[in-house]
Amino acid sequence: VEGHESAAAIDPIVRAVDVELPRPTLERAVGDGDALVAALAAAGYADVDTVDIDVLRRLSPALRAAGWRCTAHVRGREVVAVTAPETSPVGLAVDLGTTGVAGYLLDLEDGRVLAVRGAMNPQIAFGEDVVSRIVHARQSEEARAELRRAAVDGLNRLADELCVEAGLEPTDVVEAVVVGNTAMHHLLLGLPTEQLALAPFVPAVAGAVTVKARDAGLALAPGGYLYMPPNIASFVGADHVAVLLATADIWHDRNVLVLDIGTNTELSLIARDGSIRSLSAPSGPAFEGYHIVAGMRATTGAIEHVRIADGEVEVQTIGGAAAVGICGSGIVDALAQLHLAGVLSPNGRIQLGSHANVREYEEHRSFLLVGEDESATGRSIVVTQEDVREILLAKAAIQSGTGVLLSEGGVGGDELDLVVIAGAFGSYLSVENAVAVGMLPPLPAERIHQVGNAAGMGAKLALVSSSARARASELRQRVEYIELASHPEFVRRYAQSCRLPAANAGVA
Amino acid sequence: VEGHESAAAIDPIVRAVDVELPRPTLERAVGDGDALVAALAAAGYADVDTVDIDVLRRLSPALRAAGWRCTAHVRGREVVAVTAPETSPVGLAVDLGTTGVAGYLLDLEDGRVLAVRGAMNPQIAFGEDVVSRIVHARQSEEARAELRRAAVDGLNRLADELCVEAGLEPTDVVEAVVVGNTAMHHLLLGLPTEQLALAPFVPAVAGAVTVKARDAGLALAPGGYLYMPPNIASFVGADHVAVLLATADIWHDRNVLVLDIGTNTELSLIARDGSIRSLSAPSGPAFEGYHIVAGMRATTGAIEHVRIADGEVEVQTIGGAAAVGICGSGIVDALAQLHLAGVLSPNGRIQLGSHANVREYEEHRSFLLVGEDESATGRSIVVTQEDVREILLAKAAIQSGTGVLLSEGGVGGDELDLVVIAGAFGSYLSVENAVAVGMLPPLPAERIHQVGNAAGMGAKLALVSSSARARASELRQRVEYIELASHPEFVRRYAQSCRLPAANAGVA
Repeated sequence: VEGHESAAAIDPIVRAVDVELPRPTLERAVGDGDALVAALAAAGYADVDTVDIDVLRRLSPALRAAGWRCTAHVRGREVVAVTAPETSPVGLAVDLGTTGVAGYLLDLEDGRVLAVRGAMNPQIAFGEDVVSRIVHARQSEEARAELRRAAVDGLNRLADELCVEAGLEPTDVVEAVVVGNTAMHHLLLGLPTEQLALAPFVPAVAGAVTVKARDAGLALAPGGYLYMPPNIASFVGADHVAVLLATADIWHDRNVLVLDIGTNTELSLIARDGSIRSLSAPSGPAFEGYHIVAGMRATTGAIEHVRIADGEVEVQTIGGAAAVGICGSGIVDALAQLHLAGVLSPNGRIQLGSHANVREYEEHRSFLLVGEDESATGRSIVVTQEDVREILLAKAAIQSGTGVLLSEGGVGGDELDLVVIAGAFGSYLSVENAVAVGMLPPLPAERIHQVGNAAGMGAKLALVSSSARARASELRQRVEYIELASHPEFVRRYAQSCRLPAANAGVA
Repeated sequence: VEGHESAAAIDPIVRAVDVELPRPTLERAVGDGDALVAALAAAGYADVDTVDIDVLRRLSPALRAAGWRCTAHVRGREVVAVTAPETSPVGLAVDLGTTGVAGYLLDLEDGRVLAVRGAMNPQIAFGEDVVSRIVHARQSEEARAELRRAAVDGLNRLADELCVEAGLEPTDVVEAVVVGNTAMHHLLLGLPTEQLALAPFVPAVAGAVTVKARDAGLALAPGGYLYMPPNIASFVGADHVAVLLATADIWHDRNVLVLDIGTNTELSLIARDGSIRSLSAPSGPAFEGYHIVAGMRATTGAIEHVRIADGEVEVQTIGGAAAVGICGSGIVDALAQLHLAGVLSPNGRIQLGSHANVREYEEHRSFLLVGEDESATGRSIVVTQEDVREILLAKAAIQSGTGVLLSEGGVGGDELDLVVIAGAFGSYLSVENAVAVGMLPPLPAERIHQVGNAAGMGAKLALVSSSARARASELRQRVEYIELASHPEFVRRYAQSCRLPAANAGVA
C-alpha cells in the first residue's frame, strides 16, 4: 500500500499559480483582491471568483512588500492562500487515532512526503478508550470543549513540528485531511458525541465534512480547508473509509476481508459482486495491553513474540531488552502457543500438569513466561487464567464479526480470497498464531496481507486527489453497515468463538 | 424609494423549509446531518449538500428536543441555520455610516420590516471623519483592531436591540447585508485601510464580499452569511452602490445626477446611454455642523431653516425649541438667504452696511441670526465670515464635482432631467436654497427628488433579493470612476465654484 502517492494518483485539490499584478495607478486603482482575481483569470483560472477573507486581510501589505508578485493557492473557485512567489502548495494528512496520531506533510502537486511524525493523542488524559472519552464529554459542555481542545492543540503541535522538520511555517499548509474513528472525528469538530454511544448509535454527521481549517481550530494557512472523509456509523469511522480507499485497488473481483484491529476492530467484507459490508467488533483493550496482568504498550522491553518449541518457552522483546511485560502481539502468540502446546483446554482452561511452567496459587492458575531473575522488573512475567479469558473474548469478538460478515455476504469461509490487515498492531501480529487461535480465517499465509497504517495512507491519498475524495464517498455509499450487537447470529457465534479451534478448523 | 421591498422585488436568498425527520433506529442509524439533507431532498431541495459546521454542532440535541421536526434555512446548497418548526427566515440590513448607523430587521420571504433602529457609530470615539479613522488605524495593528471591534460591537448591539423589538433572538438572523463607505467596509471586515488613503488610493477589495457572519465577528445565526455590495473606489463605497441600486428604476432613459451629501459627497451621473460616472467630492464636515462657529448636529434646538424676508430674519429650529446652534440645512439656507438679500459679495464677503444684522468686531465680520435673549444658550448665534467661507468651499466641492461629471458624460447642464438627493442630510436640505447658492444644478424643484436613506433602502433590497445583488455587481461594472483631485478640470472649476452664482445662473 505504501507508495500509492505516486504521480498517477495525484489530482490536486489546490494548485499554486504564480502571478504578477500590474501596479495600480490613479487611473487604474483596481482593488487588490480584484486585481488578483483578474490576474488568475489571465493565467487560465477564469472560474476563480472568491478570495478568502483572511487572505484579503493580509493581501494588500503582502503585495506591496513583494513587488506585486505572489503565488496564489487556488482551490476550486477560491483563493485559499497567498504566499511568496514560487512556493508549492503543502498539505497535512493526519491519522487521528484514539491512542496514537500519525502526521504527514505532503507537497500537494507532486505528492512528495516532506515530513512524517507520530505523537500520542493528548485526549488520553481523559480516558484510554473511545467510550470513556464519550462518557467524559457527556459530563458537561466544558468537558467536551476540553477534549476538543486537547485534540486541536495536539494537531496544531504536530503540524508545527512537521513544519519545523520541513523548513516551513504552519501558515504554508493550505489543505488538511484528518481521518479518525467517529468519536475522534466528532470531538475534533466539536460535534455532540452523546448520541454516538446511546442506542440507536447515531453520528451527528456521516457524510464527508469540508470546513475551513480555522473553523476546526487548526492554525494553518488562514483560508485553508480541512477535509474529513465520511463516517460509516458511530463505531466505524472515517479512518476505516480511509483504509478501504487505500486498499481498494488490491480487491478487484475477489472476496476480501479487511480488518483494522484495535479496541474496536472494524471489519469489512468486499464480495466479488462489489458489495461492501462493514461492522465493528468490540474486541476490547487487551490487544493494547490493558486488562492483562503483565500487559503493556508496544514499547521497549515488551514481549512481542512468544514461542514454545519442544517445551521450551522463548520470548522476543522489543529492542531485545530484558522483559518488562507483554504487548498485544505477544499475548496473541502466547494464547496460540499455549493452545498448540496442549496447555489449554478447548474452552481455554489452563491444564494443571500440562507443562512445567503452569502454576497454581490459591486456585489462580498461570503460565510462567519469564522468571524473576531474567525480567527487567525483578518479578516474574506470567499469563494468568484471566488473561487467557480476556484474550479469548477479544478474538471471539473478531471471529464472530467475521462469521456474521461472511454469512451476510453469502461468502463461504473457503471462498475468501484475501485478508487485509490494516493498522500498526496488525503489522506486528504473527499471522500464523492469529490463525491458530481462530482470530483470522484459516487462509494460507500468502493470502493474508499486513499493510500497515492504511488509514494514514488513505488520508494521504485524499489529501492529494479530488478523485480519491469522490471515491471515498462512493465507497461509503456502497457500504451496508451491520450493527453486530443486535444481529440475530451474534450471540451464538460469539459464544462458539470463545472456544479454541481444533487444529486446522475453519471459521465458526 | 421607500416601499421598494414589495413582494415583486423579493427573490429570497434564504428559504425556510419545514421538515420532519424519520426517527433513527438500530437498522437505520443515519447521521443526523445526513438525514436532514435527505429530508430536504425529499422536500424538493435536492441541491443541498452542505450543513454548516456550527449548525451540525447544535443539530443532534435540537432534533431530539423538538421531536425530529425543525425549520431548515436553506441558502443555495447549504443549510445555514436550523430553528424551531415553522419559523421564518429573518435578515438584518444595515447602513453603516461614518456617523450614524441605521438597522432594519426583515422577514426574508415576504420583505416585511420587523424592526427599525438607529444608533451612532461607536468608532466616532476614534475620529469624526473617515480620514481621521484611517489615520488612527495606521498607528498599529491594535488600533485597527480597536476600530474593528467598535464597529462589530456596535452592529451586534444594534442587532440585539432590533431583535428585542421584534421578539426574536440574534441567532434567528440568518443573513445580513451591511453597506458603508469603503473605509467603514474595510474596518468592519478587518481589511487593511492604509492603502485607501495613500495615492493611488486602492481598496483591499472592490468586488462584492460574501463571508460567514461569524468571520466578520457578527453574533447572528451560527451559519449565516454577511453580504457587502461592491465598492467603487477608496472614497466611493458600497453604500453608494446601494444608493444606485435603490434608485435605478427611476432613471430610465434620462440624464440623472445622484448625490449623497456628507463629509465626502458621492456623485454619480447616469447618462441616457446607460453609462454611469461616479466620483467623490471632498465637501468636508461643514454640513454636519463641524468647523462652523455655532455649528451643531441636527438635534433639538438646531436651526434647520433660515429665511430673510423684507429684511426680517426668521429661523426655524428642530422641535421648535429655543435655538442652540445651527445645523447643515440651516447653514445652506443662511448662505442662500444672505446671498439673495444682497449681504454677500459674489466671492462671499459679508458687506458692511448691507443689513442691520451685520456686525464687525476687530475685523471679524458676522451676521446675527438669533440674539442672546432669544437663544437657549444666552449667547447670540451668528454666521461668521469664516463660516461663509467654509460652506462656500463645501458647496464648491459638490458644484465642481457635478461640473466634471457633466463634462465627462457629455451632458449639458440644461440636458439634466433629474437630480436625486440621497441621505438623511439631503432630506432636510432646502432645494431652492441649495440651487440658489449653486450647490445643486438650477433645475425646477419638481425635477429634484429627495429620497431619504437610499443606502439603507439598497441594503434592504440586497437583503431580500439575489437578483438585486446581481444588479448591484452589474451596476458596479458599469461605473467609470473619476478621481476628482487629479482631474484636469478640477482646479479651475473648484476656484470658479467658490463664488456665488448670479441669480438664475447655470452650472459652472
